[in-house]
Amino acid sequence: MINSTSNKQIKNLAQLLKKAKARREQRVFVVEGWKMYREVPKDRLVMTYVSESFYGQEEHRSLLQGRDVEVVADRIFHSVSDTVTPQGILCIVRQQEYTLQDILDTAEAPRLMILENLQDPGNLGTIFRTAEGAGITGILMSEDTVDIYNPKVTRSTMGSIYRMPFLYVKDMAAVMDELKRREIRTYAAHLRAKKEYYEQDYRQAYAFLIGNEGRGLTDELTSMADEYIRISMAGQVESLNAAVASAVLMFEAKRQRDHSST
Amino acid sequence: MINSTSNKQIKNLAQLLKKAKARREQRVFVVEGWKMYREVPKDRLVMTYVSESFYGQEEHRSLLQGRDVEVVADRIFHSVSDTVTPQGILCIVRQQEYTLQDILDTAEAPRLMILENLQDPGNLGTIFRTAEGAGITGILMSEDTVDIYNPKVTRSTMGSIYRMPFLYVKDMAAVMDELKRREIRTYAAHLRAKKEYYEQDYRQAYAFLIGNEGRGLTDELTSMADEYIRISMAGQVESLNAAVASAVLMFEAKRQRDHSST
Repeated sequence: MINSTSNKQIKNLAQLLKKAKARREQRVFVVEGWKMYREVPKDRLVMTYVSESFYGQEEHRSLLQGRDVEVVADRIFHSVSDTVTPQGILCIVRQQEYTLQDILDTAEAPRLMILENLQDPGNLGTIFRTAEGAGITGILMSEDTVDIYNPKVTRSTMGSIYRMPFLYVKDMAAVMDELKRREIRTYAAHLRAKKEYYEQDYRQAYAFLIGNEGRGLTDELTSMADEYIRISMAGQVESLNAAVASAVLMFEAKRQRDHSST
Repeated sequence: MINSTSNKQIKNLAQLLKKAKARREQRVFVVEGWKMYREVPKDRLVMTYVSESFYGQEEHRSLLQGRDVEVVADRIFHSVSDTVTPQGILCIVRQQEYTLQDILDTAEAPRLMILENLQDPGNLGTIFRTAEGAGITGILMSEDTVDIYNPKVTRSTMGSIYRMPFLYVKDMAAVMDELKRREIRTYAAHLRAKKEYYEQDYRQAYAFLIGNEGRGLTDELTSMADEYIRISMAGQVESLNAAVASAVLMFEAKRQRDHSST
């Protein structure tokens, strides 16, 4: 059992939870909690750590039987955990790398989200979760978007991080060109757009562009979109939360596919 | 200028930020930030506190000219603020009380959200903001729902808290009876429902029922609903975030009203 915060593995765990650089260098990330552990693809699981009291429970011990786990003293486990009330299980998971090719070739008619400079970890995680539920086939993010492997993001994906293909993009203009070449229609959510989002037909390949929480999409990226769409709002609301706006668009597209006659 | 944490007003502010009981007793709540200050209905503004450095900026001082403000030393202001990087303005706002009558009589065809035992402050605030944007006319919450005056909730409403009529309900069964009597159709979002949410017609008075983040709606409240609806999901997603599910339903209803021919 690990009993000290100066233990090498504990020091490394703490680094991986806090530093994007450490995650990048080791090409892994850390997830917490039973649900996130259960859903890890087995070939990507690097190491599992459990707290002493978690492991002390018969049901946990039997579920983990035959698995490679490292038991950590409760006090040490709490000190390294990213959550206020840790569930008692943490694991290191190998990152999965996708290319643009991978993402565009997965589906016959790709359904994409393009996120520009999103900063709120909860928003990004929620978009991943919602996107999987809405049948999105891949997520492209500008390089300045918050790190998907930030523990707050991975937690709010509720496991979708393991399954949703994604890519951080350096040259968004090149990507937009490639989408055009492949006839994937791009829709920029924009407050000044004239067309309502539900006035478009999303039954073919498409990509929705969503911008930063405070400032929206940059003019540069907006100018590259094929179409502009708006979500009209009642009352004095100036904008929707980025995850909410994404959800409204993605589920309208799903509704059209599933039930085009309504 | 207030220079000490033992100042009575500062002590009271700290209480109001932390304790629902203090807010209830004084029938006020506290909001932070320039946007939340700007949108306060003037007749409900009790007191405004600004940090010394915030007030030191010419533009702020001129915008606040003629307003009743109390200047607080930066160190003291930081100690009382609920945010990590305080903007430098906090205000005490009078609570607005609504009755069920108020809420049901505001609109000819009320459009309601009924929230049962929601616990995440960010979710509740986001639902208020989204609801205003989607043209919801009132929000009813079970008594065990998180306090709307919790600073994290008010912040994520982005000002909708001032405008959206709401009520905490003790006897939900009585409310459901009253809705039935008024022919307001109630729709429970439920994973085992057979009908898709978009297969219903929301162009008349309606109420959507949304349950707790982890457990969903109680069987008791579910059994009182007129209709059951589901949001079908792709992939391995088990459920949507409560604010996301609410948004999908509220904006589908808005879409039907605004553009019933699509």
